[in-house]
Amino acid sequence: MRAICSSCGRVHYENPKMVVGCLVEHDNKVLLCKRKIEPAYGLWTLPAGYLEVGESAAEGASRETLEEACADVEILSPFAQLDIPLIGQSYIIFRARLKTPSFSPGPESLECALFALDDIPFDSLAFSSIIVTLRMYLEDVKSGNIKFHYCTINKRLGTGASDLRSFDIDNHLSV
Amino acid sequence: MRAICSSCGRVHYENPKMVVGCLVEHDNKVLLCKRKIEPAYGLWTLPAGYLEVGESAAEGASRETLEEACADVEILSPFAQLDIPLIGQSYIIFRARLKTPSFSPGPESLECALFALDDIPFDSLAFSSIIVTLRMYLEDVKSGNIKFHYCTINKRLGTGASDLRSFDIDNHLSV
Repeated sequence: MRAICSSCGRVHYENPKMVVGCLVEHDNKVLLCKRKIEPAYGLWTLPAGYLEVGESAAEGASRETLEEACADVEILSPFAQLDIPLIGQSYIIFRARLKTPSFSPGPESLECALFALDDIPFDSLAFSSIIVTLRMYLEDVKSGNIKFHYCTINKRLGTGASDLRSFDIDNHLSV
Repeated sequence: MRAICSSCGRVHYENPKMVVGCLVEHDNKVLLCKRKIEPAYGLWTLPAGYLEVGESAAEGASRETLEEACADVEILSPFAQLDIPLIGQSYIIFRARLKTPSFSPGPESLECALFALDDIPFDSLAFSSIIVTLRMYLEDVKSGNIKFHYCTINKRLGTGASDLRSFDIDNHLSV
């Protein structure tokens, strides 16, 4: 995709962006943050955000968790890569654990909370990527075998990002 | 990282770029391409290149393999994510298989060939990411358990990209 500089009209090449985040496990619960910013204000998400140049994906995921949930985590393992070609994003999610059992909302969160797996608010999740990640995680936990997942999320045009039926999962591969 | 437009001086944000590629398996061999372009002209690499907006990582890896080795492949499973924070790159490598046993050098390759695992030209590989990927693959094949790997490649400043001793592997996690 080529983007035109709004100032000078010069063409800049744009590449897909990596969104890195953590699935923080604690006492058989997972840590979610209620968003204080648009898009998806008031909806729940995993702590996640854009990877920056100079940091690894694991470092970026830890940083976002510190920023959004004031939680100091240790990365345990890669859990999923979810590509969303239509919007040029690729989510990279790691399993992580709290180094100390402490968290609180950062400036971009209204609230942070641990949810038992049966209590995850699937009707109030912020993004399709978060729905897919948590569905895969629940299935893995139930089967007793936590894997690494790759898939593509193909959004259907003209539907909202948080509509549970607005996307298809393609090319799901797991290791 | 902020980049200044060379034309207008406006600040543009730059994010890490994803490099997607295939580790193509055929008859217990792997497919390598000898580069016809700089950097690393004349050295061997896995078919790989920058992911583009609008395609998934798996689609991008297949496209690069078609472009560089004229090989039509089926993606089998995710194999590795290797972050190189110093240069803002993240390699995403998939295992793949030839749909038909046919390949030939594309315009950016001098030569394409299948290498038995004992014959991989480790002294003539193009990039640290390719060395690390093939080392991990060899270990997995020997142990009989092919996993998914995540790691960070931290280059040592002032050394060449293809120097076998010019980097450290940190935070290696596998599933």
